[in-house]
Amino acid sequence: MTIKMYELAGSTDDRLFSPFCWRARMALAHKGLDFESIPWRFSEKERIAVSKQGLVPVLLDGTREVHDSWAIALYLDEAYPNAPALFEGAQARALAYVFKQWVERTLHGPIMKAVVMDLYRHLDPKDQPYFRESREKRFGTTLEKFGADPAAAIAALRTALDPARQGVIDQPFISGAAPAFADYILFGAFQWARVMSPAQLLETADPLYAWRERMLDLYGGMARKAKAYPV
Amino acid sequence: MTIKMYELAGSTDDRLFSPFCWRARMALAHKGLDFESIPWRFSEKERIAVSKQGLVPVLLDGTREVHDSWAIALYLDEAYPNAPALFEGAQARALAYVFKQWVERTLHGPIMKAVVMDLYRHLDPKDQPYFRESREKRFGTTLEKFGADPAAAIAALRTALDPARQGVIDQPFISGAAPAFADYILFGAFQWARVMSPAQLLETADPLYAWRERMLDLYGGMARKAKAYPV
Repeated sequence: MTIKMYELAGSTDDRLFSPFCWRARMALAHKGLDFESIPWRFSEKERIAVSKQGLVPVLLDGTREVHDSWAIALYLDEAYPNAPALFEGAQARALAYVFKQWVERTLHGPIMKAVVMDLYRHLDPKDQPYFRESREKRFGTTLEKFGADPAAAIAALRTALDPARQGVIDQPFISGAAPAFADYILFGAFQWARVMSPAQLLETADPLYAWRERMLDLYGGMARKAKAYPV
Repeated sequence: MTIKMYELAGSTDDRLFSPFCWRARMALAHKGLDFESIPWRFSEKERIAVSKQGLVPVLLDGTREVHDSWAIALYLDEAYPNAPALFEGAQARALAYVFKQWVERTLHGPIMKAVVMDLYRHLDPKDQPYFRESREKRFGTTLEKFGADPAAAIAALRTALDPARQGVIDQPFISGAAPAFADYILFGAFQWARVMSPAQLLETADPLYAWRERMLDLYGGMARKAKAYPV
């Protein structure tokens, strides 16, 4: 039975722009698992009612429902132990978990500031009110004020990226010689941005730019072929 | 033949205050390896001339000399494969390396700002000129100006610690169910501070405080028994 995954595609042209869905998408490719992608919009909560929590990614594998990108990664390694592992072991999983916290708490904020107005403009008009209301509540200000200085946000992001930058100078991937789930966590953040915004988050001379190029080439260029800006 | 390790002890009462030496010290305890600690001062470069680089920790194991705490950890896992591993595998090692970059680039700065004047006061007068000159060059300002606002530095540190904090809420150690080298990297930073300063870097209700308590209890309370402030 084919795996199905609901993925955020709330733009006028079905761009896949959730960092969390990109983690899950890369994880499925890493495992070599085919899946049916089901585009989903913010305003379609009832279509993922089975998941009882209203957010994507939602993965359906036979009778099994799994949501949350981290839980999906754990599930895939457990359910498909003979496919390439997303985590080499318990210690790697624990360290990837701390890395995930770092990405979400340190990088997602400046990236959102850098791209939020581009992202908003790409949204299907029927998803715009939900996005504005939920994000303005979260940010404590209007989208326009939150995203008022993308250049400053990009500068802050580039500085915040220092630890990961040194990582990919000394090894090809965050996870070492080969990419694994920690790489997909960081990549999801960049792919979210480049799908919706022409903002140049990384200078081409940045070692992280070269790392991102390597990520875009993985699995037959899956991420590179997605609708996105060529940044 | 006993392993020997030169450790920074430049205070008037031989307090062991290098974060890097603490990493190596915890790593040796983790491996269950006895070693002879050789206290060393900044002004004694000639005593570690064998190492050709002037910094501690320097580990001597028979005819082998190893310096740099990361290289020491790699060496110990390679030379003593039957003792408990500091890295569970290549992926865990790669992720611990990125974690190390995060600790050094994000946390060492605010910790130094919070404790530098206490640290300086504890130094042996013969080490003070070296410390002042080398650190003022690195900081681009005087020690007094660099350490002028410890309260602000502690506040910045507590915010910067967010990713690690969430890690030790959801798992007992950074490395998962059991401590490993990534834990020693973070612990070294805290131990460096508490050996030299009464500054309360962590509130007692902070999950990282409980984690640090677990670290202080390891290996018969080795780190807790060291000369330090009870913070």
